[in-house]
Amino acid sequence: MPDMNLAIDNYRINPESQVMLADWAGDDDGGLDKSETKAATAALSERLVELQHLLFAQGKHRLLVVIQATDTGGKDSTIRRVFGPLNPAGVRVTGFTKPSDQELAHDYLWRVHAHTPAAGQIAVFNRSHYEDVLVVRVHNLVPEAQWKLRYQHLREFERLLSDEGTTIVKLFLHITPDEQRRRLQDRVDDPTKWWKFNRADLTERERWDDYQAAYSDMLARTSEPVPWHVIPANHKWFRDHLISTILVDTLEGLDLAYPEPDEDLTGLTIS
Amino acid sequence: MPDMNLAIDNYRINPESQVMLADWAGDDDGGLDKSETKAATAALSERLVELQHLLFAQGKHRLLVVIQATDTGGKDSTIRRVFGPLNPAGVRVTGFTKPSDQELAHDYLWRVHAHTPAAGQIAVFNRSHYEDVLVVRVHNLVPEAQWKLRYQHLREFERLLSDEGTTIVKLFLHITPDEQRRRLQDRVDDPTKWWKFNRADLTERERWDDYQAAYSDMLARTSEPVPWHVIPANHKWFRDHLISTILVDTLEGLDLAYPEPDEDLTGLTIS
Repeated sequence: MPDMNLAIDNYRINPESQVMLADWAGDDDGGLDKSETKAATAALSERLVELQHLLFAQGKHRLLVVIQATDTGGKDSTIRRVFGPLNPAGVRVTGFTKPSDQELAHDYLWRVHAHTPAAGQIAVFNRSHYEDVLVVRVHNLVPEAQWKLRYQHLREFERLLSDEGTTIVKLFLHITPDEQRRRLQDRVDDPTKWWKFNRADLTERERWDDYQAAYSDMLARTSEPVPWHVIPANHKWFRDHLISTILVDTLEGLDLAYPEPDEDLTGLTIS
Repeated sequence: MPDMNLAIDNYRINPESQVMLADWAGDDDGGLDKSETKAATAALSERLVELQHLLFAQGKHRLLVVIQATDTGGKDSTIRRVFGPLNPAGVRVTGFTKPSDQELAHDYLWRVHAHTPAAGQIAVFNRSHYEDVLVVRVHNLVPEAQWKLRYQHLREFERLLSDEGTTIVKLFLHITPDEQRRRLQDRVDDPTKWWKFNRADLTERERWDDYQAAYSDMLARTSEPVPWHVIPANHKWFRDHLISTILVDTLEGLDLAYPEPDEDLTGLTIS
């Protein structure tokens, strides 16, 4: 069922590779036709609803979807568009923003672990444990000697989750600097969007190269045991299609099925 | 915008009243036309999406929706159909099933309090703190002298939440015994639904009158400060319409608005 015209593998990080994010094109559209692709995405979305229903009914597997992106990369709209059609009883979205005092009083994975999915559930992380090697690194919130140790923690944390039955899909939404400029300018040009605008986005933008280096190291150093996918995200229609394809492919790879009934109910009449 | 042809007040419990649930018709359809009503519900659903977007953007109000029902009353399909279209980033559904050992080691409101909504969020409870005067009462899980004290706890717990800024909507899905029989028989007649069937549903059905008495007391004794709505739920299209109307009416009663921008951005150019 996943669109085999789209080679998912091309967007998955090979853990052996040296990743230079600049080698990936944020404006890649896979050579696909926009309107045909949108129709195919709608079909994938319906399939995703069916697969989630099975996941939920079976109550066996857990799915964790980790979404990271450059600022304005489209995390919010991805969540609304790709996960919006699913049954809300089986989806839990957690946004990881600046940690609270209580969270900072623990190790950095403490708050993350608490939000991993239960059986039958899909957890979606809007930002995640990876901020602890991204914003934390770029802004020197902890010393380099400390954040450098974290790549191993992150790999081994995900190994634990995987070994214990959680399927993890990691998505990095990748846009070009020019696309970020357009998106920020769009917000500025529309006064109804001013409330969304944050001056800090501009100072973060000035650190574009520092962030790209941090992303590149993250992708290279934490793609095993669970690989990252780099999602070209300039074109939202392509982004949604690629992500939907990856999710359908992942869920179809599990042994999803309705649970066995407890008994044969043939002929039972309810009075 | 809510359909004023539908008098919501007629479905809201007057706290002064003596409630006899048998006086409410589970098969009431408000005298509405089915296909016209479905179209109106679709429009209400779009309005609900807009209102949720404002709720989320403003990050000020919290909405808690409590759903209780007779078995097979339609809690799951209500959640899927009414809350499904909303942005999953702002909706959290919690199902309260049999408490865990850890939960039982605390007072019965402990686990519930933990799942109340944060600012900008909608929390939906599939079953709730009210089970502690329903299943607990019918099955004598705690002595009568103990569960009788709980009506006051429940009222005062909701007063606390309301006083501190949480808007609460309480929905009781009401079906007729004959409709329950049909729904159980439908599950039995379709082998692909056998996995959903639970023999315990039949023994619960034998206690229909005990449950009706427990529901009636709950509705009468916990409708202030936050009133219950009795939702006739034999007809799913009517149920969805009434609930959507109540939710839109509730959210329109709040002062929802986009936050004020921090500054005037006229003329700013992003480089």
